[in-house]
Formats: sequence, C-alpha cells, structure tokens
Amino acid sequence: MTQYAVPLEDYRFVFDALGLGELTEFDGWDMAQQDVVQQIVQEAGRYGADILFPLNRQADEIGAKFENGVVTVPPGFQEAYAQFREGGWPALTGPVEYGGQGLPFYLQYILTEIMAATCMSFAQYTGLTHGAAMAIEAHASEELKALYLPKLISGEWSGTMCLTESHSGTDLGLIKTRAVPAKDGSYAITGGKIFISAGEHEMVDNIVHLVLAKLPDAPPGVRGISLFLVPKYLPDENGAPGARNGVSAGSIEHKMGMKGAVACVMNFEDATGWLVGEPHRGLHAMFTMMNVERLLLSAQGQGAAELAYQSSLAYARDRVQGRALSGAKYPTLAADPIIVHPDVRRMLLTMKAHAEGGRALALWVMKHVDIAERHPDPAEREKASDLVALMTPVVKVWLSDNGSEAANLGVQTFGGHGYIREWGMEQIVRDIRILQLYEGANGIQALDLVARKLPMKGGSLLLRLTDPIDAHIETYASSADHAEFIQPLVAIRAKLEQATALLRAKAESDPEELGAGSMDYLKIVGYAAQTFIWSKLAIEASERRGENAAFYSSKLATARFYIGKLLPFADAHLVGLEAGAEPLMALDAEYF
Amino acid sequence: MTQYAVPLEDYRFVFDALGLGELTEFDGWDMAQQDVVQQIVQEAGRYGADILFPLNRQADEIGAKFENGVVTVPPGFQEAYAQFREGGWPALTGPVEYGGQGLPFYLQYILTEIMAATCMSFAQYTGLTHGAAMAIEAHASEELKALYLPKLISGEWSGTMCLTESHSGTDLGLIKTRAVPAKDGSYAITGGKIFISAGEHEMVDNIVHLVLAKLPDAPPGVRGISLFLVPKYLPDENGAPGARNGVSAGSIEHKMGMKGAVACVMNFEDATGWLVGEPHRGLHAMFTMMNVERLLLSAQGQGAAELAYQSSLAYARDRVQGRALSGAKYPTLAADPIIVHPDVRRMLLTMKAHAEGGRALALWVMKHVDIAERHPDPAEREKASDLVALMTPVVKVWLSDNGSEAANLGVQTFGGHGYIREWGMEQIVRDIRILQLYEGANGIQALDLVARKLPMKGGSLLLRLTDPIDAHIETYASSADHAEFIQPLVAIRAKLEQATALLRAKAESDPEELGAGSMDYLKIVGYAAQTFIWSKLAIEASERRGENAAFYSSKLATARFYIGKLLPFADAHLVGLEAGAEPLMALDAEYF
Repeated sequence: MTQYAVPLEDYRFVFDALGLGELTEFDGWDMAQQDVVQQIVQEAGRYGADILFPLNRQADEIGAKFENGVVTVPPGFQEAYAQFREGGWPALTGPVEYGGQGLPFYLQYILTEIMAATCMSFAQYTGLTHGAAMAIEAHASEELKALYLPKLISGEWSGTMCLTESHSGTDLGLIKTRAVPAKDGSYAITGGKIFISAGEHEMVDNIVHLVLAKLPDAPPGVRGISLFLVPKYLPDENGAPGARNGVSAGSIEHKMGMKGAVACVMNFEDATGWLVGEPHRGLHAMFTMMNVERLLLSAQGQGAAELAYQSSLAYARDRVQGRALSGAKYPTLAADPIIVHPDVRRMLLTMKAHAEGGRALALWVMKHVDIAERHPDPAEREKASDLVALMTPVVKVWLSDNGSEAANLGVQTFGGHGYIREWGMEQIVRDIRILQLYEGANGIQALDLVARKLPMKGGSLLLRLTDPIDAHIETYASSADHAEFIQPLVAIRAKLEQATALLRAKAESDPEELGAGSMDYLKIVGYAAQTFIWSKLAIEASERRGENAAFYSSKLATARFYIGKLLPFADAHLVGLEAGAEPLMALDAEYF
Repeated sequence: MTQYAVPLEDYRFVFDALGLGELTEFDGWDMAQQDVVQQIVQEAGRYGADILFPLNRQADEIGAKFENGVVTVPPGFQEAYAQFREGGWPALTGPVEYGGQGLPFYLQYILTEIMAATCMSFAQYTGLTHGAAMAIEAHASEELKALYLPKLISGEWSGTMCLTESHSGTDLGLIKTRAVPAKDGSYAITGGKIFISAGEHEMVDNIVHLVLAKLPDAPPGVRGISLFLVPKYLPDENGAPGARNGVSAGSIEHKMGMKGAVACVMNFEDATGWLVGEPHRGLHAMFTMMNVERLLLSAQGQGAAELAYQSSLAYARDRVQGRALSGAKYPTLAADPIIVHPDVRRMLLTMKAHAEGGRALALWVMKHVDIAERHPDPAEREKASDLVALMTPVVKVWLSDNGSEAANLGVQTFGGHGYIREWGMEQIVRDIRILQLYEGANGIQALDLVARKLPMKGGSLLLRLTDPIDAHIETYASSADHAEFIQPLVAIRAKLEQATALLRAKAESDPEELGAGSMDYLKIVGYAAQTFIWSKLAIEASERRGENAAFYSSKLATARFYIGKLLPFADAHLVGLEAGAEPLMALDAEYF
C-alpha cells in the first residue's frame, strides 16, 4: 500500500542549505523564519496526510461524475475543500491587500507538493486559483481586482485557465473563440474550449474563467488573442454570485488518471466577460498564469516521486524474497527483505534522488521568484526574474519526467503487486502522466528554452545559472574534502558550455537544429542545475554530519548515487546534440 | 485514434536480412519459404486487424467480469477465440505428431506480435497454451502427452502456469502449495496461487494448469519443488472433460491495464494432479515453459511499439499545429502537420527504431531457437541453444522496456489527447506495463544474465553473441561504403568486452557487485546486440535501395537515427557499471 508522511526534516534542511531565510530580510517577509515555515509545513502535512491522503484511492475508483451539466466530485472532496478554506490555505501566499497572508511564493510550491503527493486529483481543483489570481492582479483593472481577488484568495471562488480548443492546443494562433464588445464595456464570448481543469464543480460559489478569445479586429495568429475574465455566475451589485452566465460544461473527459479531477469541455455562448490587460495582448497576460502553473506543476511531479519513494521504501523493508548475494542478512527470517538487493536499491535511490534533488532544485528556482518580487535592488530583481524565465521550462520537464520515472520505479519495486489497483502504486503512474502533457507538452518546453529563453537579452539568461555555479565551484575549489562534489560539477559545467556553443553554431546554419537539439539541450541544463544543487546539499550535509548521522549520511549517499549512476546520462544527450538535425530530418515525411 | 496494419513488408525484409530461409534446409521445414511465411503473416495480420483490433477498446472499457467463480470475457472474445481455433492458429508451431503444423518457432513470435499489437488482453488467453504444451512435451509421461497435447495444440483446451503465491513471487523456494501422493499414482494438490493469467474462463472446454507444489519429502528451498499437471475437469475414459477437479478461481485482480484478461487467485483443494518430470525437479521443467513465455513476451512489447508507432505516425501527419522553424512546409494549410517538427520526429523515430529494431533482434534470437531444435550438427544446436539462453533475459528486458518507452512516446505525440481514453493511446501504456513485471521482473532477468548465464560453461555463452558480431565486422571491415554501420558496432563491441571484464573482476572481490552492475550490464549487451542487428539491416537495405526507395531509405534513416541518438546511452551504463556497488550499498538499510 502507499505510505506518506510529510518530509519535515528534509524541508528544514533545504531551508538552510538554500538560504531561504535570506528572504526574511525583504519587505513584509520577516515572519518567514525557519520555525514559522516548519510550523506551516507541519500543518500542511497534517492536512495532506490526515484529510487528503485517505481520499486518494476512492477518488480514483469512484472518480468525478458528470450529469446534466453538473459535476459531482468524489466522496470527501467537498468536506476536504471546506477544511482547505478553513485552514486558510488558499490565502497562503496571496497579496495582503486582498486578504492573503502574503508569504513567499516558495511556500505555494511546498503546499502543492504535499497536496499532489497526498491527492493529486483534489489538488487540481485548488491548483489553478492561485495562478488565476496572479494574472488578474498583474493585468486586470482595479475594479476587477477589487471584485474578484478577495474571493479567489479566500477560496470562496476558484479559477480556471481556458486556452485549448479541439483544433488548437500548442498553436494558440488557431483559436476560434470570439469576443464581441458590448456597449457597457463588457464582451460577449462565444466558442468552445476543451481540457479545462476544474472547469465545473460545486465546491465553490463561483468559478472565474480566464479565457483566450479573438476580438473582431484581431490580427491573425498569436498577436490577435485577448484575455477575458468570464465568471460562471455574474456578480450582483454586492459582488455576490447572481445570474448564471452563458458558460457551461458540455462534458468531462474520461482520462488515464486524475479521475477525481475534471477536464471539461466548456461552452461559451454569448457569455459576458471583461477584458484583462490590453486587446490582442492576451497571451502575454495569460502567461503570467501559465508560468506560475508550470512552476507549480513541477511540485506535482516531485510530490509523486516522494509518494512513490516512501511507499516503495516501506514495501522494500517489509517484503521478504530471496537472499543477499553476499549471504543472508536476516537469517532468522524466511528470506531477506528486498532492500538488501542492489537492484532494488538502485530503484529506491533513483526515486529518492528525484524526490529530494528535485525538491531542492525547484525550491532554489522558487526562491528566485521571491527575490524577483521583493529584492530591494532592481538589478537583482531582474537577474532573479531571468533565472526563473530560463529555468521554468527546465524544471517543468525535469520534474515531470523524473516524477514519471519514479512512479514507474515504484510500481517496479512492488513487482506484480505494483500492477494491481488496490496497492495504489499504478495510480501514481496514471495520475502523474498528465504532467508531461499539460501546460505545454514537454517538447514545447524544450523549444521554449532554446528558441525563446536562450537568445533573450543577448543570450545572457544562461549566465543566471552559470554564475552561481561558477561562484560555488570557486568557493570550494581548494577544498580536498569536497572534491567529490565539485569535480563532477566542473565537468558538467564544461559540457553545458560546450552544448550551448554547439547549439548556437548549428542553429546559425539551419534553424531546424534548434528543434532537433532542444530536448537534449534541456536535459543538459537540467543535469548541470541538478548537479549544482546536489553539490550544495552534499557539502552542507557533510559539514553537519555530527548533528544527525542518519539524515546526513543518507543525504550524502543519495548525492553520491546521483553522481555515480544518474549524472552519466548527461553525456548521451551531448552526443545526441552533436549528431544534430540530420538523423531526424533526413527522412521524407511520406517515407516514414 | 489507434491504427494498425500488419507490417508485411518489414517481415519480408527481415526474413531475408536474417536469413530465415536457411531454416528450410532443416528436417520438416522445407515449406517455411519466404512466400509461405508471407502468406501466413498476411493471414495472421488479417485475423489481428479485422477480428481482434476492433475488440481492443471495448475489452479495456468493459473488461473481464468475475462472479461466483465464473469469468465472463469481454464482448467478442468468445467469437474471436472460435475463429482463432478455426484458423488453425493454436497449432501453428505445435509438433506434427500431436496435430500441430510443425512450423518454426519464430512464427509463434510473429503471431504473438500481431495479436499483442491488436488486442493484448485477448492474446493473454491464448498465449500460455503453447508454452504449457512445450513443457508437457519435454517433461511429461507419454500417457499425459497423448491425453493433453492434442487438445492444447488444437486450442480446444488452454494452459496456465501456476507459480506465484502471495508471499512467494521471485523467491519460489517459499511456496507452500503441497502435493500428497495418492495410491493411483496421482497427487492431491492443496494451496493457493495468485496472478494466474487465463486461470479461469469458458472459451475452452478445459484448462490445464501446470502447478508448482512441494512433495511431503521435499528438501527446503527451490530444490524441493515439483511440477504437476492439474486439469480443471478430470478427463473421462474417452479423454473428454469429466468431473470438476478441486481447483477454482477465488477472484480476479483489478489491474492497471490488460482489463480484458484475467489474473486469477486460484484455489487448489485436494485437486487431482499428475507429476510432470522428476520429483523436486519441477522448477527445471517449469522453466521450459517460462523461457518460452519470456521469449514470446518480448513480442508483446515489440507489438505495442508497432501499434504506438503506426498510430502516432497517422496522427502526426494529420494534426496541424505550428509552423516548421525553417518556414511553413504546407503553406496552404492553417498550420503544418506536426511531423515537420524535429522533436516530434525524435519521438516517431524512437518508436520506429524500437518496433523494427526490436522485431529483427528478437527474430534473430528466435531463429536460434529453431536452429537449436533442428540443426543436424549437435555442436551447432548447442551453440544456438546457448545463444538463446544468454539472450532470453536480454530480449525480455530490452523489448519490454523499449515497448513501454514507445507507448509513452505515443501518448506524448498525441499531446493532451494521448491522456484521454477514447483515443486509445493511454491504454497501450497501461496494457504493456505488465511486461516489465511478469515472467520474472526485469531486475530478476538482469540477475539471471549476470549470475547464471554469464558464468555458465566457463563463461563461453557470451561468445555466441560476440562471434557473429566479430564475423560481421570482419566481412565489412574494408568496405568504406558501410563504415557508418560498422564503426559504431566496433565501438560498442569493445565496450561490451570492457564491461564484461570489469564486472567479472569486481564480482571476484564482492558478490554484491554482480547485482549492482546487473541492469547496466544487461543494457550494454542489449545495445551491442541491437547495434549488430541494425548494422545487418542497414547494410542489407543499402544494397537493395534500388528496389524500393521509400522502404529502404526509411530503414537506413532509422538505423542512422538509432546510432546517432539512441546508442549513445550505452556509455552511461558503462560509466554506471564502473561506479560499482559502492553508491548502492554504502547506505545502511535503516538510514534510507
């Protein structure tokens, strides 16, 4: 069976190792000290483990139902949502002026990780609201903000992101949904959207859809898309939900997993909406939300890795089968627990490396979201913002791919039982598989990295990653004690340099080279960043080993495993990058 | 939606490239010429595409049901089974003296590939019968053979393999099922088995269970296991199904996929059985069947890769989204078909390489099953048998891992639609996931390779793989034309040598090194064998290019893609092997 307890100690360690305490020096965040954060994590862990986790299997077995336009959520979700609101979780990092607690963004990551690990399909109903609020805060009029933000931040209302149409997913320039201006300054929205997460449900009093549509005078393509706020119920003069708006769910999809969540077909028929941001600049405004979702999505992949690891570890200690190759380790038992077998340990350590390494890497990026918001020095804010822009596609792919790998290794650790639904391990694989697809499929992320982020600002974004790596290398260059964690970083740092030069040179002669190398290049950036983070964690752990031998020797062993057994795969991506576009593009499309 | 047409042309090509025609020189196989084989493949393809494929989605949605000990198979299975029998498919490769058609074993592989690609859960009901018959033929008394083989070979009855118990999967020494001798030479079998594929259903008149159990005087562990034949209905004096035996299904599992198939809990209560082979040598006898199943399982992984590829290719040609980076390729369409995008091609070519490369590699191994059976020279038979022993765990892992990767890339190619059940792509992922788990989880296969196969006969089994590789290299060493397909083979051949020496040296000082390096080593063997096969295919294709430009340039492009983009991963496994057991074994079990 699956097992989960909040990894409190790891959060404490990462807080120190990444210097999250530095954020307390910024305006309004003096309360975000280690002990306060620990308390929040503990509470979130209690909510996840005690309230959400018991709902997870049933959410999969029963699923969400749809009848006559109404969604019925799985048993317990309604009550869990009430507790979510009562606990103040929707407000955790929302702006204080609209009722939020105003805590740093990285806490949103932690909350998302815990909720995804304990019931990913429940988390889908709450997950988009924060991003919708951020987009409204950044781009909407004061009037819309005053009306909608307090409700979203209190969790009374929830949010959605309506982009995809059946013929238009990655290529949003193809959308057909129209917006016609009305005399009162509102717009009449008509069109059909698909795959709308939490598009319809009755756990909240109102649902706020952020919808991409085209104005009558829209130029063709992505430069003709505008963003609209379309509520399920039109607020009355007191701001309370009034008349039903012309938006409704037509059906829900039958999915591989995430069965407790809904992906809705949403029909807009002359629905009343309000423009958010400038006309034809809707994609820009929507990307405020999209980027938040991509960042938080990485928490879902990493949370699943944590769940797979904890569950597999418990099973590997309990299940006895076979004897260690070097002789029985538990001679009084009928057989040794399978944790004695090296190949089982390979699987466990891979999951552990993905869960813990992924957490620290992502939190390092999230810290920069916070620096970008509040650092007093505008130059530092800009640098941090550039790092986040560079790393958003990387952590989205890195943690969703690694999460899927971890979930599959979890199934594998359970052997045949992994394939049986009641054990819960195969559900993790099914639930998490969506992460590589939504909010921009992983191939699109790779293209975003090489074709948008890499050339931006004269190619300087990459320095935001390599500068801290170089500084870290310099700090420990002369320390023989830490050489085992610095040398591999020096090596992968050089390969990143080489890969970047190679990709840039190739792309000059043929733009297809960018696409051909995109995924290999993204993985090399991922390995470089992950090695940097493991190096930081390992050095911190080795300096603290006296405090808690079990925890720190475990951390060091995981770092060594990562370097010895996972990092070598980076080289294959460099060789693949060198091979270039030719092996992909030589074949005529009709000869496939 | 999923798409399938039998890859007739590829079978024709592989027949020539691998010299399958050589088998016609052996006793009784003169009919197995290219044109006859093509006819059989075409017929099997028609059966798969027309009869099985339309059942596949419904089999998943409705699934097999269980009530009061009775299994109801999904709609259409009963009729499809009747057509399976009428078509003579159960008899395809069965021995002529018991009513079989006596064709070479490799045709069983092809039939399995086609059936797995078109309806994997149906194939589960027919798939074990052939292996059960082979075990009975090899080990049972003449009386049992005469009674059971004709019924199994005609498909009137089906077979099962009853090994696993809830506490005993990999470690069969722990089984508790007992066999008590009766006065008439039979045995009373009592115990509980789990995960029994096709353990109960009513598409056949009788089910023949091959059951592992312990005799009263059994020594402990795996040397105390015997094999028994236990029919569902005891044959009467005419050999027809008579009284119900003391064996019944207690329940069926709820699984991740393969929902049309059943994995039964089987209860044996004083069931009458007959010993197959010698007392306490049951594992040896069962392994005749197990090895056949492991070989045929590779066809399931490879068939799934074929289905994922064909379906994804059709989608990638049809779905328009975005423009090529080098400018619009189909300017009259709203957008370019996604097959123009390099990263989509990376996914397509990976699936194609797994489907076609896997097919040829597996058929090369299957050819040696046939050589081992019928070559007139006993030395050649032994050599071929040794190659099969060496490669059985390799193809089991290689094709099941690659099949899962291909299925996941299929989902990825479909984007969000890949996650939706009605499109059929996610079903492939769920169905195929069992392959890495059953008939010995993949980690166990790796251990079988390094701990059993590699040291066997003074370590000479590996020569059965490397000798043909070396001969191939020598043949083409001086051909500049083929250098691109010989040089990478020379390189991976050297790495295999290095890996073997390394593993042997390490294992001398610490037996845990064997387990620690097992999966990395297996993958290196897989890459070496696969590169050898691609080299053969590519050279054959380049020499025939004039005949059919589309087919052969596609084959060459796939070979180049494999060498440029997939083969580089072999190096990471070599580096992982060098890192040894330390990164896996250093951490105390309680510190995880």
